[in-house]
Amino acid sequence: MDIEKPYLLFLGDVHDQLAAKTAQGVVDWRPEWCVGQMRLPGCKADTGLADLTLEQAKAKGARTMIVGVANAGGVLPPHWVKEIVAALNAGLDVATGLHKRLSSIPEIAEAAKKNGRKLHDVRFSDVAFATGKGNKRPGLRLLAVGTDCSVGKKYTALALDKEMRARGMKSDFRATGQTGVLISGRGVAIDAVVADFISGAAEWISPANDPDHWDVIEGQGSLFHPSFSGVTLGLLHGAQPDAFVVCHEPTRTTMRGVQHPLPSIQQVIDRTIVEGRLTNPAIQCVGIAINTEHLSEAVALKTLEETAKSHGLPCVDPIRTGVGPIVDALVQRFGA
Amino acid sequence: MDIEKPYLLFLGDVHDQLAAKTAQGVVDWRPEWCVGQMRLPGCKADTGLADLTLEQAKAKGARTMIVGVANAGGVLPPHWVKEIVAALNAGLDVATGLHKRLSSIPEIAEAAKKNGRKLHDVRFSDVAFATGKGNKRPGLRLLAVGTDCSVGKKYTALALDKEMRARGMKSDFRATGQTGVLISGRGVAIDAVVADFISGAAEWISPANDPDHWDVIEGQGSLFHPSFSGVTLGLLHGAQPDAFVVCHEPTRTTMRGVQHPLPSIQQVIDRTIVEGRLTNPAIQCVGIAINTEHLSEAVALKTLEETAKSHGLPCVDPIRTGVGPIVDALVQRFGA
Repeated sequence: MDIEKPYLLFLGDVHDQLAAKTAQGVVDWRPEWCVGQMRLPGCKADTGLADLTLEQAKAKGARTMIVGVANAGGVLPPHWVKEIVAALNAGLDVATGLHKRLSSIPEIAEAAKKNGRKLHDVRFSDVAFATGKGNKRPGLRLLAVGTDCSVGKKYTALALDKEMRARGMKSDFRATGQTGVLISGRGVAIDAVVADFISGAAEWISPANDPDHWDVIEGQGSLFHPSFSGVTLGLLHGAQPDAFVVCHEPTRTTMRGVQHPLPSIQQVIDRTIVEGRLTNPAIQCVGIAINTEHLSEAVALKTLEETAKSHGLPCVDPIRTGVGPIVDALVQRFGA
Repeated sequence: MDIEKPYLLFLGDVHDQLAAKTAQGVVDWRPEWCVGQMRLPGCKADTGLADLTLEQAKAKGARTMIVGVANAGGVLPPHWVKEIVAALNAGLDVATGLHKRLSSIPEIAEAAKKNGRKLHDVRFSDVAFATGKGNKRPGLRLLAVGTDCSVGKKYTALALDKEMRARGMKSDFRATGQTGVLISGRGVAIDAVVADFISGAAEWISPANDPDHWDVIEGQGSLFHPSFSGVTLGLLHGAQPDAFVVCHEPTRTTMRGVQHPLPSIQQVIDRTIVEGRLTNPAIQCVGIAINTEHLSEAVALKTLEETAKSHGLPCVDPIRTGVGPIVDALVQRFGA
């Protein structure tokens, strides 16, 4: 799925900023792909971009309208359908990360057909994946893994990709979740593929590349999460990472959504190496990324420092400190 | 999915016995559910059951016609469609394990509707699974795991279930693959569920039960198989086995379908315990099942004896020796 840029971000009339998390992620990480936002009366979210009409967005070159909002249940309210049809009539493609396929809504399917426009349902992939082969392929790969779900794996991977590009290194962010797909304009929501093809999809996402090129691959779940461990292991085996970064949220008390205790960072390092060796015997941990947003500056910096010291690895918060020390470690271990 | 019994086994006109492996599995394990077979001119497979017409099968009480054959590509040849429609018209339900849904073939969908008959596509599940919760539930569970795919996990689980029932123990075979579903009349092809729901589907397959009841759960893949490890881990975490049996095929030289070396039996025992402890800290290995069909009797018996001795565990070939010693170990460790 290749989504044409630039984007117009549709926010609908959602009631808070959190509901526009996907749109905000796109604006934060790919501002150069965004011409503006479109909001309906009553909308309480704001990405900070200019409010545009469809005509203004077209005039600014927009190619795709991103429905970058989640409402309860992932359902598309009827008055949004009308707006999507209008966007298709105006000549835009439309992309969403909703659970329901755009093409399953007759008015939308019809408008897309009539106007020769593409509909992108990024939760679903129409690729016929092969099963994973496990053969090592050229290129360098880094995978963000986690002590839990939602601890900053996507954010860490995006920050690493950005820092590596800024240093002139060859790097691509490889999305494995719906928001990541919208941010990068391609990829696969790997938790939505059929179970037999998890590692095959991971191999497809990160194909052979130049020997000095890094794929920075978004992780999913955790090897220690009883709901999603299968996705995590299949992704690890398909990604064949040379390097991995452990992501952690220090204020979490149980694994997200279940009554299970969190593993330690060291347990995640050890288990990832044990399992990852199956398809890449040289796998190594190159750093730790801690989401310190719920800690004070003093506690945050102390946590990072102590964690770095006790593990003998660079430890950063991608937002508070940046990921420079981890990229330094990559350069030192693998070359620029 | 509950498939009504007894069955008429449709073999079509396949060119060898191997193509009728699914039908043969049903006949081997559930002869009491099979009234006969139906073959087309030129069929080279034979389950040994009586050849029946649709009318004869109906007269013998058949409720469902099982399309128990696989042809190249999993496609349904047009002249089989005609036979399936005839079965529906004769008042039978139809079940298959093909990749294509029966209901996606208009003539078949129409005939099913007209006659009020059910179509069972056992590779697909229409259950809306929850994600796995990882909470321990009552009842005892045994999982068959493997050094590789296709090493006898289903066969071992079926043999254990049969032996436990023969001893008056409470036991159910829990199918996780398409042939297993046809043999047991229920279950889920777990490699075909969406990746996020692997462990949730495993929890659904094996719900809470009496404290002295065994679910004997068919395993899938191998933790050491780069294509399918995610399915294996999700199934392990959802199944929460108290006991597991390692299945092995000693003449295999690489993992099935890929260029990877096989793990040792001990590696599989150790890794299964390390990973399985996440949802059942008391997980233990209770035996080894070796498929010795490609070994001479003398070599086979020596292999079983030496493997038992070196691992300190009962080691059997379910076909050559039966699984009695493993059930003895279960009774000794968990009670009758």
